[in-house]
Amino acid sequence: MDRVNKVLDEMLKEEIPAMLLLKEENIFYISGFKPSGFSILVLKDDPLLLVSKMDGEEASKTSRIPFQEFESLKELKNIIKHQKFAKLGIEESMKIGFYNKIKNNFDMEINDVIERSRMIKTSDEINSIKKSISIAEKSFNQLEFKKKEWELAAELEYLMRINGSQNEAFETIVASGSRSSLPHAHPTSNKLEYPLLIDWGAVWENYSSDCTRTRVETEKQEEVLNICLEAQKETIKSIKPGVSACEIDKVARDVIKDYGYGDNFIHSTGHGVGLEVHEKPSISSREEITLEKNMVITIEPGIYLEGEWGVRIEDIVLIKNKARKLSKLPSVIQ
Amino acid sequence: MDRVNKVLDEMLKEEIPAMLLLKEENIFYISGFKPSGFSILVLKDDPLLLVSKMDGEEASKTSRIPFQEFESLKELKNIIKHQKFAKLGIEESMKIGFYNKIKNNFDMEINDVIERSRMIKTSDEINSIKKSISIAEKSFNQLEFKKKEWELAAELEYLMRINGSQNEAFETIVASGSRSSLPHAHPTSNKLEYPLLIDWGAVWENYSSDCTRTRVETEKQEEVLNICLEAQKETIKSIKPGVSACEIDKVARDVIKDYGYGDNFIHSTGHGVGLEVHEKPSISSREEITLEKNMVITIEPGIYLEGEWGVRIEDIVLIKNKARKLSKLPSVIQ
Repeated sequence: MDRVNKVLDEMLKEEIPAMLLLKEENIFYISGFKPSGFSILVLKDDPLLLVSKMDGEEASKTSRIPFQEFESLKELKNIIKHQKFAKLGIEESMKIGFYNKIKNNFDMEINDVIERSRMIKTSDEINSIKKSISIAEKSFNQLEFKKKEWELAAELEYLMRINGSQNEAFETIVASGSRSSLPHAHPTSNKLEYPLLIDWGAVWENYSSDCTRTRVETEKQEEVLNICLEAQKETIKSIKPGVSACEIDKVARDVIKDYGYGDNFIHSTGHGVGLEVHEKPSISSREEITLEKNMVITIEPGIYLEGEWGVRIEDIVLIKNKARKLSKLPSVIQ
Repeated sequence: MDRVNKVLDEMLKEEIPAMLLLKEENIFYISGFKPSGFSILVLKDDPLLLVSKMDGEEASKTSRIPFQEFESLKELKNIIKHQKFAKLGIEESMKIGFYNKIKNNFDMEINDVIERSRMIKTSDEINSIKKSISIAEKSFNQLEFKKKEWELAAELEYLMRINGSQNEAFETIVASGSRSSLPHAHPTSNKLEYPLLIDWGAVWENYSSDCTRTRVETEKQEEVLNICLEAQKETIKSIKPGVSACEIDKVARDVIKDYGYGDNFIHSTGHGVGLEVHEKPSISSREEITLEKNMVITIEPGIYLEGEWGVRIEDIVLIKNKARKLSKLPSVIQ
């Protein structure tokens, strides 16, 4: 229950006596139970988990905190009203449809204390992420480069499963030739061409990994990939506790801009990774969060020439006194 | 633009001159573009799609309606304010965090017109669902029954991909032995035992399929599976346009109750399937929607003996004058 107490302490500092959690990753983080249906965790001194009938047996096996079956919204309101909380914290992801059903009953305020707490990883969490990375890398190394984008995606996802991944962390991107200029391309039945951009991740004990490699062919493609590699290297060097996320983003952006490709770097430099493949902190020009020890983030500069092709490199780093790359895969793939 | 006009007509009847769409399936339904990042579709007489910079090239290839890059919330507010709509429809899934950023600017009302429109499938949509089902069934038939739950899940997902599925419709469930009493069990490294419950689906042109089969071993397991088969058969027979979803749910529930397993049927009888694997209408005791021609729904009665084992059968039906099963796979798997 250390995690619960740590979060409750944070909540108290912000004068939030209780929170309603509906997001499955937040419920898992606090309780150890991952809902498959509608669930609510009332996070307070004596937390209570409400789960769907269907999830009762799973909760009895995995939840570290007491749970009961979710009966009705009316019952939930009674449980909360009974405690007379001055204010109730809610997640920014709560659906407006649900919010409207309870808004007249409580004074509610959006609070991201759970997501902020999740940014700082424990050693167990770091080990799970490392294992997730090693599964993704082992699978990549076993890959036979086949003839079509989706066959390659299918094979990579299969290998990750066989190597122990719960499922894929996100829909694997295999984008070749002109498809590589789309940062989030879906694999097609196109035959593999160059550049060949692959972005994939595994999941181990609910923790994701996320990696991108691009195989290039022409001198021009190699030149542009080298700019991304330089941007990534400089960015990783600049990471240390106390620096803000937007400063880090600027390092990558400046390297790419200096080579004249500023307008072709059309996404942010990275993101936190953990129970979600994209989580706080965003490493973007608008994110002012200060980086701290034990954050785990991706650094993924990319350059996209619209209608032609694109390249990207992505690795996960762990922040200690400086950033340590957790990936072991070579940056350049032959 | 037929679909846009049809939805705009419905909106007018409900005095909603414009809607803000953020849900990716709704944006795809209207525009043909599937966002990979933050996107907003302002649905009005002359609809406008705002997409992230990263998605610009993809939108230029796929969107049937005009689009521009999303610059800022301020710009969005100006675009909408300019038109002086009396009211703005929003999706119930809009996040409270986003809602709070615009709530002072507009009079907003939750409206599910898009989800209601999506319930009634066109012949193109029905064909995509049929193709998705046929991929899932072909893959199942090619399956080699291996030694561990997750190997079977990995193989089934790989086969679906190779047979043309974009990805899996949801995390494949392979639950064997005592795991089968968990309706949404994650595959484990357990060796396959009986009952062996497999719940899987493919995706074709963004349309999902969803099917469950259970292999049984003992007489008792066969007897309980037969109750589910009878419940499914009776339920499908009772489906016709004009009947409400909760009446259909009751048919399945009554058959199972008559055999003394009422408390062991711990989820709803089915759900709509289309761009989402779970969409309207829910076939549950609380859903009063009237069934109509060209709805596509699952019928999936299950019986779960907590701590022991469980069985389920699930097929997709298309509603015409009566319900037609779209699945071709035998109900009983040897």
